[in-house]
Amino acid sequence: MSIYEQGLAPRSVNHVPLSPLGFIERTAKIYPHYPSVIHGAQRFTWAETYARCRRLASALKGRGVGKGDTVAVMLPNIPAMVEAHFGVPMIGAVLNSLNVRLDAESIAYMLRHSETKVLIADREYGKVVLEAIELLEQKPLLIEVDDPEYGEGEAISELEYEAFLAEGDPEFAWEWPEDEWQAISLNYTSGTTGDPKGVVYHHRGAFLNALGNQATWSMGLHPVYLWTLPMFHTNGWCYPWTVTAQAGVHVCLRRVDPQRIITLIRQHKVTHMCGAPVVLNALINMPETAKAAIEHQVEAMTAGAPPPAKVISAIEEMGINITHVYGLTECYGPGVVCAWHQEWDELPLEERAQRKARQGVPYVTMNDIMVADPKTLRAVPKDGDTVGEIFLRGNTIMKGYLKSPEATEEAFAGGWFHTGDLAVWHEDGYVEIRDRLKDIIISGGENISTIEVENVLFRHPAILEAAVVAQPDERWGETPCAFVTLKPGQEQVTEEEIIRFCREHLAGFKIPKSVIFRDLPKTSTGKVQKFILREWANAHVEHQAS
Amino acid sequence: MSIYEQGLAPRSVNHVPLSPLGFIERTAKIYPHYPSVIHGAQRFTWAETYARCRRLASALKGRGVGKGDTVAVMLPNIPAMVEAHFGVPMIGAVLNSLNVRLDAESIAYMLRHSETKVLIADREYGKVVLEAIELLEQKPLLIEVDDPEYGEGEAISELEYEAFLAEGDPEFAWEWPEDEWQAISLNYTSGTTGDPKGVVYHHRGAFLNALGNQATWSMGLHPVYLWTLPMFHTNGWCYPWTVTAQAGVHVCLRRVDPQRIITLIRQHKVTHMCGAPVVLNALINMPETAKAAIEHQVEAMTAGAPPPAKVISAIEEMGINITHVYGLTECYGPGVVCAWHQEWDELPLEERAQRKARQGVPYVTMNDIMVADPKTLRAVPKDGDTVGEIFLRGNTIMKGYLKSPEATEEAFAGGWFHTGDLAVWHEDGYVEIRDRLKDIIISGGENISTIEVENVLFRHPAILEAAVVAQPDERWGETPCAFVTLKPGQEQVTEEEIIRFCREHLAGFKIPKSVIFRDLPKTSTGKVQKFILREWANAHVEHQAS
Repeated sequence: MSIYEQGLAPRSVNHVPLSPLGFIERTAKIYPHYPSVIHGAQRFTWAETYARCRRLASALKGRGVGKGDTVAVMLPNIPAMVEAHFGVPMIGAVLNSLNVRLDAESIAYMLRHSETKVLIADREYGKVVLEAIELLEQKPLLIEVDDPEYGEGEAISELEYEAFLAEGDPEFAWEWPEDEWQAISLNYTSGTTGDPKGVVYHHRGAFLNALGNQATWSMGLHPVYLWTLPMFHTNGWCYPWTVTAQAGVHVCLRRVDPQRIITLIRQHKVTHMCGAPVVLNALINMPETAKAAIEHQVEAMTAGAPPPAKVISAIEEMGINITHVYGLTECYGPGVVCAWHQEWDELPLEERAQRKARQGVPYVTMNDIMVADPKTLRAVPKDGDTVGEIFLRGNTIMKGYLKSPEATEEAFAGGWFHTGDLAVWHEDGYVEIRDRLKDIIISGGENISTIEVENVLFRHPAILEAAVVAQPDERWGETPCAFVTLKPGQEQVTEEEIIRFCREHLAGFKIPKSVIFRDLPKTSTGKVQKFILREWANAHVEHQAS
Repeated sequence: MSIYEQGLAPRSVNHVPLSPLGFIERTAKIYPHYPSVIHGAQRFTWAETYARCRRLASALKGRGVGKGDTVAVMLPNIPAMVEAHFGVPMIGAVLNSLNVRLDAESIAYMLRHSETKVLIADREYGKVVLEAIELLEQKPLLIEVDDPEYGEGEAISELEYEAFLAEGDPEFAWEWPEDEWQAISLNYTSGTTGDPKGVVYHHRGAFLNALGNQATWSMGLHPVYLWTLPMFHTNGWCYPWTVTAQAGVHVCLRRVDPQRIITLIRQHKVTHMCGAPVVLNALINMPETAKAAIEHQVEAMTAGAPPPAKVISAIEEMGINITHVYGLTECYGPGVVCAWHQEWDELPLEERAQRKARQGVPYVTMNDIMVADPKTLRAVPKDGDTVGEIFLRGNTIMKGYLKSPEATEEAFAGGWFHTGDLAVWHEDGYVEIRDRLKDIIISGGENISTIEVENVLFRHPAILEAAVVAQPDERWGETPCAFVTLKPGQEQVTEEEIIRFCREHLAGFKIPKSVIFRDLPKTSTGKVQKFILREWANAHVEHQAS
């Protein structure tokens, strides 16, 4: 044993479990009178929010909830949702954030699977919540939130959230986790097929990704953060904890309404926000006068699909700078960032957009990334061309899937987390997604990235939305089939014209064989449901053959 | 066992030891062509610096150095010093950074105590180094650095640093620490009495404090960091790691020369620097034209003594903003910060300075602070008046003292780290140091803070430096004795005048009974050696009595 290991074991003075819970205590102590949460006419300070979180923890404990118990929430981005991110784990309980767009059966599955003891739900989702509970053998305690900013709907429980808080002690001595590996939250993946899987987060990872967000974005003190991203998505990418650590302001938003977003950005001088490209698109499509109203610099983090050049230029004209990140539920939201190079600022827009479209490199708090063969885990060459699966490794990867040892083993096989995303690895080490593993089209032995074809379609001036899937083909095995919606006033555009457009920009084998004009089916989190499109594509081929 | 603990144990995919070593690999991958280290005419990129660190690790391994072995350095702030912070721990070895101002006997003690295998030393310290080695039974391998920016001195070893690097492999596959609790560095406290103690740092703490620095300072990407703080002080407050994580530039500086500092700030557009107040003082005392030459905003972090109002206003006029931090060798340098409130910007200068003079609140990466009775560890009231000892607890506290189990137990008694600093706790939770535990003066049963008396002396326009200690007093037990140096041209000021000045600003029992004009003895790290002053004060009293 080396001299550096003799009598120098960790102890409580120098080894404290990492946890984001310390952030709120620290911020409330240092900046008690600073604004914490703004929600319509409601205003809270950090002292108040901390007291409300302690009340929540204390009230839950009073109702018999404790370490390892599940507390579910079905809430939009309102104060109670911020509070749940601290109050629930303050007693060692686990926060299960439900997707508010799901149906009763899915919700019932998640409540049952997670053995939820308490459910806190907004009146807006009352119908689904009551139906879901009806399906359960073990009913959780239901606490309803009667949000004054909603102001509609009927009571769904005799116990309202504010009354429940009143049961608790605002000075409650909450419990620091005994171990940083302890679970802090549970997030079910939306899963396009099969039962949803419950992704379990640990305190260590939540602490680290919260700091990683701050470092990645060089986020200063007192950010004004607008909640355009649902907090039920991977715990709002850990921003409930990041913004609190930075003694910032959580500006709540019940739903994505572009006019309201612009109003709030102006009114509160919002500095940061996150969201899927759909949020950015909604802003771009606002009238010029509304867009011109933003007079200060805003930072926007986006993920889910690379922002096209047009979106980047239009959004930058509004004074909003985009940071492109990548992640999954399994890695606490963002864990990979298209780390910018100053010299890229000088590139022409198209090239700049190409750089920004890449998913990038690991956060400083994520340890490693690899693009490799999905079977052998052998890394592909960094040639920007060879497609492999993205693998991640690090402290911001989930504990595993709840009660799903096989799924956990599969996801972690070979000592890497299998993302299921296909990408190329550029010479400079940046990864760029080509497709989901299950979405890739194999035509005549050639791989076709549906994203590449979609990106071409997006460049057509008449196209609003596009999604490409494989359709069976007798000769080639598979060929691309495009589903497209058109912009208002552009309905005259034909299948032939779009195929002609693709011919100008794509190799022959990549050109869609069919273009179908139809609304795109989406999951509750806004992802296009390609498995439905594949059924439609199959039906289309059969129909043509008959 | 809760459902969240079943089959969800940590494994290599989701639990990787925290270590600052990952920072350089990441930065070199993402920003290989960005500048890393600037030293006079020398320029390195991150690809080059990373390759040099790997060479160093590989060459050390080639010479038989491995995990748990000590590699000492006696270096100024030059590229080799940055490289040692990565290259040495890359093979699990421990970096022992020696204070370059120490004498041969002290150095010999540290080399012997730490069982140093290899010593890397700059020619400037050749004489001391050779004398120290002469005193050792087990001689370490000596590698000399012949720095072109020094260009003087004689060879002290046949093995020069660049030749040593050439022995190593620039692609060396270095070893990630097996455990984040593994030792990364060793820093001997300068200790005004007794043998120096070897403070052992772990990878976990170094990673966290490096990120904590960044979060505290909201340091963006690509900072230009000027090395005004010696890297041998608590590993440069962890900034070798922080600046690397942020893909910044290390601007080296062999010695604190105010004209050179201003030149470098201008030339490289320095954004950040750290240092004791003496560095800020040196800048303030430069001619107006030199001071006016800084045309951009610079951030300076300072610790060791609260910056007086005059220093704050003078330095802010230069375009330099001060962040006041507090820490000790035992807590990786800074771990407490005077977190600023925007509303304090509006206060008059004196009040602003009073706020900024407070040591403050814990870093987001430090867990807890307490001002308490040194014996009972009972917290003092937050009244801004009751004096107690500062106690710290958290992940950025040392492993303990090397081979000193008793000193370790003493420092950690009661589950808190005993800082030995006396402070008051303000109502808002900010701590403010009143004195070192051993420096406090007890006069007629009343405690007198020597810092309070010194702060009054500093406000006298003729006084350049001041230090106050206890002198024996037959009636009161102890009374304050002031040692003072005067500014050039102010030598006519008398003891009586200074005592009269103190009477205007201090309670009667706090007024120095003697004022002695004499140069202040300092330690190698620039701290006033109060134990010598106490001897002088004793002699002064005896002399008067005789």
